[in-house]
Amino acid sequence: MWSTIGELGEFGVIERVTARFPRTADVILGPGDDAAIVTAPDRRVVATTDLLVETRHFRREWSSAEDVGRKAAAQNLADIAAMGARPTALLVGLAAPPDLPVDWADGLAEGLRAECAFAGAAVVGGDTVSAGEITVAVTALGDLQGLPALLRDGALPGDVVAVTGFLGLSSVGYSLLEAGIAGAEDAVRALGERARPGGARAETADAVAAAAAGGPDDAPGWLACLREHRRPRPPYARGPEAVHLGARAMLDVSDGLVQDLGHIARASGVDVDVDSAALVPEPALSEAVALLDGLGRPGRPAVQRMLFGGEDHALAAAFPPDTELPPQWRPVAAVTAPGAGGPRVTVDGADAEPQGWEHFR
Amino acid sequence: MWSTIGELGEFGVIERVTARFPRTADVILGPGDDAAIVTAPDRRVVATTDLLVETRHFRREWSSAEDVGRKAAAQNLADIAAMGARPTALLVGLAAPPDLPVDWADGLAEGLRAECAFAGAAVVGGDTVSAGEITVAVTALGDLQGLPALLRDGALPGDVVAVTGFLGLSSVGYSLLEAGIAGAEDAVRALGERARPGGARAETADAVAAAAAGGPDDAPGWLACLREHRRPRPPYARGPEAVHLGARAMLDVSDGLVQDLGHIARASGVDVDVDSAALVPEPALSEAVALLDGLGRPGRPAVQRMLFGGEDHALAAAFPPDTELPPQWRPVAAVTAPGAGGPRVTVDGADAEPQGWEHFR
Repeated sequence: MWSTIGELGEFGVIERVTARFPRTADVILGPGDDAAIVTAPDRRVVATTDLLVETRHFRREWSSAEDVGRKAAAQNLADIAAMGARPTALLVGLAAPPDLPVDWADGLAEGLRAECAFAGAAVVGGDTVSAGEITVAVTALGDLQGLPALLRDGALPGDVVAVTGFLGLSSVGYSLLEAGIAGAEDAVRALGERARPGGARAETADAVAAAAAGGPDDAPGWLACLREHRRPRPPYARGPEAVHLGARAMLDVSDGLVQDLGHIARASGVDVDVDSAALVPEPALSEAVALLDGLGRPGRPAVQRMLFGGEDHALAAAFPPDTELPPQWRPVAAVTAPGAGGPRVTVDGADAEPQGWEHFR
Repeated sequence: MWSTIGELGEFGVIERVTARFPRTADVILGPGDDAAIVTAPDRRVVATTDLLVETRHFRREWSSAEDVGRKAAAQNLADIAAMGARPTALLVGLAAPPDLPVDWADGLAEGLRAECAFAGAAVVGGDTVSAGEITVAVTALGDLQGLPALLRDGALPGDVVAVTGFLGLSSVGYSLLEAGIAGAEDAVRALGERARPGGARAETADAVAAAAAGGPDDAPGWLACLREHRRPRPPYARGPEAVHLGARAMLDVSDGLVQDLGHIARASGVDVDVDSAALVPEPALSEAVALLDGLGRPGRPAVQRMLFGGEDHALAAAFPPDTELPPQWRPVAAVTAPGAGGPRVTVDGADAEPQGWEHFR
């Protein structure tokens, strides 16, 4: 059998990987031709693209291939949800060294497949090329279902900014990996499997909603944070929900809450003040922060993680002041007319130094 | 001013680059939000993705940044045309070392913009990340305009396979670069500019059609081949034309005519026999092959280049036998019921060893 993708060859990799991808009702033509064809029921298509590069965005010793696939899919599908759209399709480019094990490519494909299944989308196309390092390029498509898109520029003074999904868990998960927790990998995995209902991760939006309401799930907190770093779980269904609730602006919290709310502030021409008392850490987050302290690697406290930690792919949206929000949407900030120095984001009325994740610098 | 993209930072690169991209009527929302929104007039969207990796697909000493941008866009937009669709939009991911000159990123963006303008599409989104090598990930979207898509599986015995666009020029252009012709870069560029009408490349489909009918253009042949390698010119408008002409199968010739017709043969369950006498080399191709001989670097003869050379991004389509083809479509092969050993592609009735371009091997 083939052990590396170099032995298998480009067409072999593509055939092997695409065999794994089921079709959905949105797939008119899947992989295998010059291009795919996907439904666009309301005559508009939402589209976004992101790259993940090894060592920059993931490390093979810290994340399995399936983790990388799930994360690559999740961060793009979350961008679709953040427009208020329903994810429909994914296209994936894989650049990788010829000595990459076929197992790794299989795992990546499985992760992409599983995350798409979770979000209701399908992998419809791809490309593989040889390169010196692993780069995963993902494009996601989505359907606005006849509703207006939620951009960043619609927030008005008086609006309430609410968040759904996790904040800070991915950040502390990353710190745990930096602190060397990956040395306990086997124990971590065994615990992780045991903690999942039926031995598998819950794959419904309801399960995620329940988890968001009651904590990530019943895994040990630090393990939950590791897992959220490796496999963030964006609240996909909450994106279209925000449109129905009357939200006026929305985005995906990928670079940290303060930094990302800055995009809404600038695009909408408003100030946004975060109420730090509204940022109640998940027990898992607090537990992981305490573990880091116990390991002699104290870092940012939990609320700082929630303000500045990226990659959880929560959604943040500005709602009119009288909106009745479901409990999964947690009000965390107020929108006001821009004052001196605005548009800007403050925390408890004071300047907050954004410490998000910006590439190249 | 900023001299490298590392100094400019991710958001700086994105702002600078996207400022360059004009909107078209298909762009509902361009770059700058979580995702773009593009029209999909007939409730379907065609989508394809490809990666270009430095040293594997281009060399900075052989191609300008603008060349790379044009080629990255062209190879994806050609896949859209090969479905019979009209290209509408492009999303671009750039992974690059922080020390990449800002000028190079600007040139890449200019190339992407120019090729999109040529094809009638718009750049609507992107991502930039730091990496050890340059990777350009492009996704193209297209509109089928209410017509059926042209797949690879519809060819029937009796059909005539016709080609539009160039064959072999990119291949010999690559060989010229391998032979060291890039040392005469300044002279090449000066000649190239002079040879273009008004000092700029003709940017209309008619101009390309005229070029396809009468030769690449009035540049010296070897120079034309260099340019086709650096900036292939797919005959975008011929894709939808093939649908109107009644074609039953079509694809983009990216890996070489024989290898790509193999996809039609296998998908359609037919044999395809190429008539080598129908492959009349462009004067530019013959001139470049002669120049290679003169340089003491003899390679494949012109017709072999047309059979096996990739990256010109011509279109090949199977038409019913009685189709009246415009002169830009040149009949080159016949479709027959599969014989022993079929489905397969033959040249003048004999086996031809495919020598296309496959990654990883």
